Amino acid sequence: MKVGIVGGTGDIGEGIAMRLSQHHEVIIGSREAEKAVTSSEECYRTLTDMGLSCTISGVSNQEAVDRGEVIILALPFKHVESTLSSLHGLEHKIVVSPVNPMEKRDYFVYTPPPEGSAALYIKKKLPAGTRLCTAFNTVAANKWKALTEDLEFAIPVCGDNPAAKETVMTLVNCIPHIRAYDAGPLAASCMVECLTPLLLNIARFNRLRDVGIQFR
Amino acid sequence: MKVGIVGGTGDIGEGIAMRLSQHHEVIIGSREAEKAVTSSEECYRTLTDMGLSCTISGVSNQEAVDRGEVIILALPFKHVESTLSSLHGLEHKIVVSPVNPMEKRDYFVYTPPPEGSAALYIKKKLPAGTRLCTAFNTVAANKWKALTEDLEFAIPVCGDNPAAKETVMTLVNCIPHIRAYDAGPLAASCMVECLTPLLLNIARFNRLRDVGIQFR
Repeated sequence: MKVGIVGGTGDIGEGIAMRLSQHHEVIIGSREAEKAVTSSEECYRTLTDMGLSCTISGVSNQEAVDRGEVIILALPFKHVESTLSSLHGLEHKIVVSPVNPMEKRDYFVYTPPPEGSAALYIKKKLPAGTRLCTAFNTVAANKWKALTEDLEFAIPVCGDNPAAKETVMTLVNCIPHIRAYDAGPLAASCMVECLTPLLLNIARFNRLRDVGIQFR
Repeated sequence: MKVGIVGGTGDIGEGIAMRLSQHHEVIIGSREAEKAVTSSEECYRTLTDMGLSCTISGVSNQEAVDRGEVIILALPFKHVESTLSSLHGLEHKIVVSPVNPMEKRDYFVYTPPPEGSAALYIKKKLPAGTRLCTAFNTVAANKWKALTEDLEFAIPVCGDNPAAKETVMTLVNCIPHIRAYDAGPLAASCMVECLTPLLLNIARFNRLRDVGIQFR
């Protein structure tokens, strides 16, 4: 599968890229293609230095969209609108939102837009018919990047198109030890997105680091 | 510790009562004291038949409040207002809300009141100074009642009074294998309450039963 990562040079994007590129062709995108090239070269070096094979390249965000079959929007919520308005062709893709709108006050607060979740907001901004799923929300960037660590975490996946959701769950499950769970329709995404501020609070108030979730 | 359970004859209340009464004195309350007596006798029989010792009794909701040091409101959200308005003396107690406002549509939806969470709603209904915490939200009734099963689950606890939160976390941790986590101030309760509809969706859409949560 060809996976384009829009905003793929951030910590989360790079981390997901390093995990997925061992199993799929990953195309890291960035507003500045050069930055994506540098990032993909660093990922390639890190992985091959560990004896891991991978397929990864760096291009502009638009080229990542053009070349990917599944497009992951690895963006902070505040950059979603400007980035999406600069891209075209997403109606032909499966798009994945790992976006968690939140604010850091005395504690982390889930701050969804009026639509109810980042996912429903993104759906409004995308061309009609784009197959949108929520996934990859709940694993910390440090964990994605800690390549010697097994990721024994659950990843809930929401979406309205069953085939697209199945594809995204398969993509998630290609990462050893991670397990994708169907968490319902796209409208249920708010319950997934707000796990991240919860996990950040759990880490903060219990002096833990990079807390993730499991279901049992 | 003396633990009063308001609405203690429901599935969640009885389940929590059977777990806690092995370690603390539990007073099951009900609108009808007789129902609470029957429920406490059944719990006592179930536990002693298994060779487990316990301290448990059944009384009216008001007497459970009067006798308990910690009061658990084991109520559906829709019964919270009428029950609280019938009780007095809660300002002297540590009160625990395991209440999760939600609706079952095609999937389970978190439906908090305008205050933002059941916890913040309950805070408004309680006398000023009541030490309110959120806890016990995320373990299924069937699991509480499955006494031969270890409860290897996380229970997030929210609250604004550090001493009260510490007491509630200690109470939670008396149940073997369960682990209490500080999830921040009472205002963070929405992120805990909405775990329950999420877990119900995870169970439903993945053909699982009585799914709980762990942090790692």
